Amino acid sequence: MKMQNFKLTLCYDGRRYHGWQKQGNTGNTIQAKIESLLSRILAQDIEVAGSGRTDAGVHARAQVCSFRAETSLSPEQLLNLIRRYLPDDIGALSLEYAEPRFHARLSCKEKTYVYRIWNSTSPNVFERGYTYTMSEPLNVPEMEKAAALIIGRHDFSAFCSNRHMKKSAVRELRSIDFTQNGNVLEIALTGNGFLYNMVRIIVGSLIEVGLGKRSADSLKQALLSMDRANSGPTAPAQGLFLWSLSY
Amino acid sequence: MKMQNFKLTLCYDGRRYHGWQKQGNTGNTIQAKIESLLSRILAQDIEVAGSGRTDAGVHARAQVCSFRAETSLSPEQLLNLIRRYLPDDIGALSLEYAEPRFHARLSCKEKTYVYRIWNSTSPNVFERGYTYTMSEPLNVPEMEKAAALIIGRHDFSAFCSNRHMKKSAVRELRSIDFTQNGNVLEIALTGNGFLYNMVRIIVGSLIEVGLGKRSADSLKQALLSMDRANSGPTAPAQGLFLWSLSY
Repeated sequence: MKMQNFKLTLCYDGRRYHGWQKQGNTGNTIQAKIESLLSRILAQDIEVAGSGRTDAGVHARAQVCSFRAETSLSPEQLLNLIRRYLPDDIGALSLEYAEPRFHARLSCKEKTYVYRIWNSTSPNVFERGYTYTMSEPLNVPEMEKAAALIIGRHDFSAFCSNRHMKKSAVRELRSIDFTQNGNVLEIALTGNGFLYNMVRIIVGSLIEVGLGKRSADSLKQALLSMDRANSGPTAPAQGLFLWSLSY
Repeated sequence: MKMQNFKLTLCYDGRRYHGWQKQGNTGNTIQAKIESLLSRILAQDIEVAGSGRTDAGVHARAQVCSFRAETSLSPEQLLNLIRRYLPDDIGALSLEYAEPRFHARLSCKEKTYVYRIWNSTSPNVFERGYTYTMSEPLNVPEMEKAAALIIGRHDFSAFCSNRHMKKSAVRELRSIDFTQNGNVLEIALTGNGFLYNMVRIIVGSLIEVGLGKRSADSLKQALLSMDRANSGPTAPAQGLFLWSLSY
């Protein structure tokens, strides 16, 4: 049997989990779930690398991970086994052979996150697990104006929760798009990478703009200050989806 | 204070409940929940009449109920109070004054139910609470052919779970419409009323047609036989929504 490199694409409902990344032997995380499942199916120790972490409660419409395994199972056979044993809040979308050097995090070129806001006084019963509920109306054109001021290649320290980051905080935020779907406002952020809590802090700041609590310009000022104290609150996890990845 | 008649429109996620109808002092039902909430808010004993029962686990995009109360609160004030105290899986869509003779069940002219089937081998993570998952492909044109054979005004005894029904089983089934939304097949049934489990037995029978387990014609034969033994199984509750009501 030859050592193979695999690319596995998952989706998950984040509500029951303490995020993607395993935490020693504690915590119910997606990564730990997938590693223990693959290790049992393949009867060998499997380590998976995700495209990046998702926080506790954050969902994934698509999360990619890579792993190496010695197996004579075809990707199709292995995918069927994985699907048979996954809990119903984690789905395996696809499994394929990957180039030997493929790595889910290091090979990732672009990520899109979508933040979903139920923006209505109408009750939010069926979308309540997958949206953040806000009954106050949001001024979306002002939010779009603010968003346009922070896209581009910048040091995003002001939009990062990790105060002691030693690595570069420069990222390229390529677009922020707004789509209204019935009562749901979807904010899609695409970039070459995101800092810890960056999407949720940008969205929390945009929401303050939408509520008239701060000006669109203040987001540009916060960005330039590189100081977390000048940006808005971290928006709640339940509205956030890791949406798509480019390799 | 004058006695007022009210029309309250609700939506709910049926998963946590033993259906609409209260069952003495036992069972977690929507009707019991609403009656106890209204009785507390209005400080008087309130009885609500629903447009009809929904089974355990069945959802409502819209369920109408009526009740009489002596109150000086406007419908808007009362609606806000109801919304404040409802659990997050029951929503109050609207509340208005109704004619004195209005009754949610007796005044109802037409009902639409929608049955939702996740018909794909792809994992069903985000819709899993609101669809019935079927990985085998369904032949929808055959299902449409079968549906056309049973619409109209008939005795629907063959599609009713209650074996000892003494009242008439004649109902007018006005339409059965099929809509494919991505991986979800939605079957909408509209009629002037439905017998116990009628929608779920019709859908269970249509699914057997879609799987090639029975012919379209066999549904017409089942209908004419007026014998429950000749129709298909009762489809699971989690795919069913009470969708809309006409008064």
